[in-house]
Amino acid sequence: MSDQQETGPTMRRLSQLESVVLWNRARQIKRELKQGVKKPYREVIDISWGDPQGGGIKPLSFVRQVLAACHYPQLLNSDKLPEDVRQRAERLLKECAGRSTGSYTATQGIPYIVKGISEFITRRDGGVPSFPNNIYISSGSQWSLQNIFIILVNSMSAVKTGVLTPVPCYDKVNMSIRELGGVTIPYYLHEDQGWELQIEELNRALESAKGVCNPVALYVMNPGNPTGQVQTRKSIQEVIQFASEKKLFLLADEVYQECIYGEKSEFVSYKKVLAEMGPPISETVELASFHSASKGLIGECGLRGGYVELVNVDPAVMEYIYKLFSTDSCASVPGQIALNLMTHPPQPGDPSYSLYNEETQLIQTTLIHNVRRVFEVLNSVPGFSCQPVEGGGFAFPRLHLPLNAIHKAKEAGMQPDEFYCVRLLEESGLLVNPGWNFEQKEGTSHFRMNIMIKEETLEGVLRRLVSFHTKFMKEFS
Amino acid sequence: MSDQQETGPTMRRLSQLESVVLWNRARQIKRELKQGVKKPYREVIDISWGDPQGGGIKPLSFVRQVLAACHYPQLLNSDKLPEDVRQRAERLLKECAGRSTGSYTATQGIPYIVKGISEFITRRDGGVPSFPNNIYISSGSQWSLQNIFIILVNSMSAVKTGVLTPVPCYDKVNMSIRELGGVTIPYYLHEDQGWELQIEELNRALESAKGVCNPVALYVMNPGNPTGQVQTRKSIQEVIQFASEKKLFLLADEVYQECIYGEKSEFVSYKKVLAEMGPPISETVELASFHSASKGLIGECGLRGGYVELVNVDPAVMEYIYKLFSTDSCASVPGQIALNLMTHPPQPGDPSYSLYNEETQLIQTTLIHNVRRVFEVLNSVPGFSCQPVEGGGFAFPRLHLPLNAIHKAKEAGMQPDEFYCVRLLEESGLLVNPGWNFEQKEGTSHFRMNIMIKEETLEGVLRRLVSFHTKFMKEFS
Repeated sequence: MSDQQETGPTMRRLSQLESVVLWNRARQIKRELKQGVKKPYREVIDISWGDPQGGGIKPLSFVRQVLAACHYPQLLNSDKLPEDVRQRAERLLKECAGRSTGSYTATQGIPYIVKGISEFITRRDGGVPSFPNNIYISSGSQWSLQNIFIILVNSMSAVKTGVLTPVPCYDKVNMSIRELGGVTIPYYLHEDQGWELQIEELNRALESAKGVCNPVALYVMNPGNPTGQVQTRKSIQEVIQFASEKKLFLLADEVYQECIYGEKSEFVSYKKVLAEMGPPISETVELASFHSASKGLIGECGLRGGYVELVNVDPAVMEYIYKLFSTDSCASVPGQIALNLMTHPPQPGDPSYSLYNEETQLIQTTLIHNVRRVFEVLNSVPGFSCQPVEGGGFAFPRLHLPLNAIHKAKEAGMQPDEFYCVRLLEESGLLVNPGWNFEQKEGTSHFRMNIMIKEETLEGVLRRLVSFHTKFMKEFS
Repeated sequence: MSDQQETGPTMRRLSQLESVVLWNRARQIKRELKQGVKKPYREVIDISWGDPQGGGIKPLSFVRQVLAACHYPQLLNSDKLPEDVRQRAERLLKECAGRSTGSYTATQGIPYIVKGISEFITRRDGGVPSFPNNIYISSGSQWSLQNIFIILVNSMSAVKTGVLTPVPCYDKVNMSIRELGGVTIPYYLHEDQGWELQIEELNRALESAKGVCNPVALYVMNPGNPTGQVQTRKSIQEVIQFASEKKLFLLADEVYQECIYGEKSEFVSYKKVLAEMGPPISETVELASFHSASKGLIGECGLRGGYVELVNVDPAVMEYIYKLFSTDSCASVPGQIALNLMTHPPQPGDPSYSLYNEETQLIQTTLIHNVRRVFEVLNSVPGFSCQPVEGGGFAFPRLHLPLNAIHKAKEAGMQPDEFYCVRLLEESGLLVNPGWNFEQKEGTSHFRMNIMIKEETLEGVLRRLVSFHTKFMKEFS
């Protein structure tokens, strides 16, 4: 399913490059604006990535104070930092070799932090036990995911290894699988049903792989990126049942677990549902669950802290996983610290609690406001339709483009939504991510937009978007 | 050359696990000491890793101050931080999306920092040009190395891909190649000649690969880990000539480039020598050179900042490299900041210069002192021989073990040097890394010890080592 070329020894497989044109052009426009070139806008707003702090969301003071004190322990003597900040920094430094964030840590992460993560998981899952030995911290959850793919994708076998991945899907997932010589088996989320994951579709996808590849794993993302969908407990049960029957390794990407907006939505972890299903399923289905400090209310993308928890994985494979993770010396220590602060935030009564609570509430309120506004505004404009965003960091509105625009895109050698996004960037300075980067259903057009941004930024985004869209639709209708 | 097993879909290749027994035991001993168990020592000294700050070397104040201010910009208003620290932090924050270290960056790294690295390289290499587009920052140089291996190792071809790697070699290098389905082709460094790299040995190794694999690349490490050897310009010329003749991609691991101790030794980069050799070689040999903020005088292992510079690599491959790096969102921002501070330290006249100069001089003096002490002490004790450490972060002394000890090790199911190291740990609380982890020459025994530690720690290490060694040799002679 991926294009391949061979051009000498340094070249392994060159699969289709994602559209970088758009981002290159955005950089160029930014330079032009700096040089004083006149445009109908004063700055480019980039909402193509899921980057809350890049979108103006303020980092949490508690997190940044602890980080500063850990990096520069002289600050521990300053009474300008709250007592609990200094205590936490002290505690964390005690766990670092040489009391320094500049030291390597154990392969799985600083044991104290790993243990803290397992406590967090147990608490989250209402007592389902979690064992530190099954947890690996990495510099971002993507690195953990890549490692699990390395294990799953048997590039040495004659028949290629297949992994079921959703459509639409966060682009780097499919990329990782293919780079390793694996095949992605697309299953389509049902857009009109709020991007629901349907078991009959998983069955269809698995059938389609017959004779093409050897399916070994199923990748799910809940809450979804780019879809914003949140699975129900029942849906998760069905997926686990399916994985059990088909003997598939289950990869549950749950990095947006803190980001739930729908009134009726709640996050339930795959691990919890698996445990609830009881033996034999609860003891046999192999599960890797991913989480990250880049997402959620902490939103520390730049620090690179993620982890994977493994359940029911064969001890021999666990040894191999250890080894694979140890090929990198260790995860970023600032990222590890962020994970500790995410899993053990200030508690009522702590000096930092009130500010922490205020800041996280504000972020929560902003995100809930944003997903409502996007839903309302986009669904009120002809040519747009947008499913409710129940969770996650993005909206993924559908574009109903006029045939003329589709023809024009083809002439320009672009996908329709790429064409739309390039024009949007040029004319309104708004950078969004075209749907074709997410391998949407053939014949549909979308774009992904980051909703983890300041309210006032979002208002500006919607104004630019609606104004451009109306003009665009008129031009091509 | 690697053991392989297949045990179901989740299991790809399980190659021999490195000795983790020793590190597990060390952790256990630490716990026992905490619980008050009586031992002939009060604490475990771990010099098995190349971790300066873990070994008590103080981080550079300038680095930590800038990091603290970047993470917690309120500090920018504090006059307790020097003016140049605040200016640098301001400058770096300006380059972060949303003025935050918590934002994602471009795939290659923050453009300002990447450009700064290319300026550093140009300066280092006496004007040989370096282009930002050829540089990729990653969360540690190991990740860059792994990515280049992914490109080189064609796990889909019928004939396995081979990479020439030195013996002894930093263990994670061979591990990475094998995990990806490649084959390592060992070339032996000449221990008695100060671990010299000899061209006839490269020729022999390449010949030995005939019929076994398809050799595509040559990995060199200069200064050497674990050997401490520093290549001369002539030696580098010979290696480049060899790579050119044999059409091998050259991987030059130069992360210890700042750590030079020998009076007659100097670091010359592969890139500089390549440029000096002129066309056609200078324009055809494909080179990847690696550097890191984990090593050198900055020694910030925990922040995870490394980079690779690519030279003469085909543009189509460069596109593929871009894509591969983009499967991880970006490198750790604290690691990127560390790279900026490493490549652009304070200059004479800057407020931080005098302290910076004092601190780096102290580290430099400590390291030079340490390598001399290790050389003197170990070579004065029967049963040890140690080549001069000209550079890098380690000594790799040879153990001349009595036959009785070798038999005893065999009975215990261990390699002779592993047996020695386990006893050393048990009896003296000293944790070093057995030579067999570095795939030393058959029939020889060594261990690797970190020399980037405080002088007083080293004295304690040498005392424990000599005392144990003398007893051990007596017991088995």
